[in-house]
Amino acid sequence: MWDRSVINLTINYPQGSNSSFSSSKRPANAKPKTFANRGMSLEEDINQSNLYYLSKKIAVIHKKPTPVQIVKVHYPKRSAAVITEAYFKEASTTDYNGIYRGHYLDFEAKETKNKTSLPLTNFHDHQILHMKACLEQQGIVFILIRFSSLQETYLLPASIVIDYWDNQIKNKKKSIPHSVIQESGYEIQPGLFPRIPYLEIIDKYILKGDS
Amino acid sequence: MWDRSVINLTINYPQGSNSSFSSSKRPANAKPKTFANRGMSLEEDINQSNLYYLSKKIAVIHKKPTPVQIVKVHYPKRSAAVITEAYFKEASTTDYNGIYRGHYLDFEAKETKNKTSLPLTNFHDHQILHMKACLEQQGIVFILIRFSSLQETYLLPASIVIDYWDNQIKNKKKSIPHSVIQESGYEIQPGLFPRIPYLEIIDKYILKGDS
Repeated sequence: MWDRSVINLTINYPQGSNSSFSSSKRPANAKPKTFANRGMSLEEDINQSNLYYLSKKIAVIHKKPTPVQIVKVHYPKRSAAVITEAYFKEASTTDYNGIYRGHYLDFEAKETKNKTSLPLTNFHDHQILHMKACLEQQGIVFILIRFSSLQETYLLPASIVIDYWDNQIKNKKKSIPHSVIQESGYEIQPGLFPRIPYLEIIDKYILKGDS
Repeated sequence: MWDRSVINLTINYPQGSNSSFSSSKRPANAKPKTFANRGMSLEEDINQSNLYYLSKKIAVIHKKPTPVQIVKVHYPKRSAAVITEAYFKEASTTDYNGIYRGHYLDFEAKETKNKTSLPLTNFHDHQILHMKACLEQQGIVFILIRFSSLQETYLLPASIVIDYWDNQIKNKKKSIPHSVIQESGYEIQPGLFPRIPYLEIIDKYILKGDS
């Protein structure tokens, strides 16, 4: 159905510092256990969906590689270079971007076991600044959120996240309530191909009559 | 003039497997020396230009992190995780993308010491497929090429690269002649801020009267 090598190139990226690597030896300052599986299966679903969209020539959306600061590289004779010392870096943008029918799409994926809200600790400054900058350039910017315990996945416009982020001190709210996401976001019904048909939401609610 | 932390996050990415890492212990199967500095100063110039465009709210264009396959990670107590085994991977897309006034931009940067042509060995299959896919979605797709010996930098529409790539066997041409790049591309006069004002070319020749 699609090129096997493309799959390998795309889904082998590590899912960030809270992914599978952190399951055994978790550093002392690691995030609370609530987010242990954060971003794993949702990211796999999104990657599969993006491959589907790519193979069907519907859209070109890719996950960006995990940013890594490379310090030491060893070059063995007659074999591939080995990176022997490197560190995870904080991303300066969101994880996914690309193009859909002439529109620039930019989004971040977040998964939480929390049932009542999405904590704002899931975001950091650079991501919010990046989302604002993309909105100013007329990009379509959003978040895909999965409440894994509830088995619900939503597309939430970035404007809502930015609003909660900017007013977290004033409003004394450190998370976006599930009820707000239900009201201001769009629930995505999972499918088989693609598993997360988020472009349907873009068509129906964001672009509307646009062709 | 712009946020220092943004600069650090953005320009510290390694420039790929032909970058500074490869200067001392070059593997037996390394690329010819003609490309030893390929992508170094041009990439720095582009990164500075992108930071300028970002700080002035003109466009949001980022270089993607170098794709790395992470194999082993060590988690020392009370300090950052250390990646102790990882490998460079071939990118499945081009190096740069982003948004400019509602338009999706996607490009690759190539630098050569060659004076007469840009060898097609500078590209690989996935990059060409990616450029084609982005063009089909109505993206603005191009190459920034620097002939370092000639001190000339050009913006070349992706369609020309694709044409040479697809016909390299039929035409028995393994490179794009400098004369073709001169005719079909647009020379970029270097500036101070930004150093490579490539968006001027986009305005003038690609978008034209579009607002």
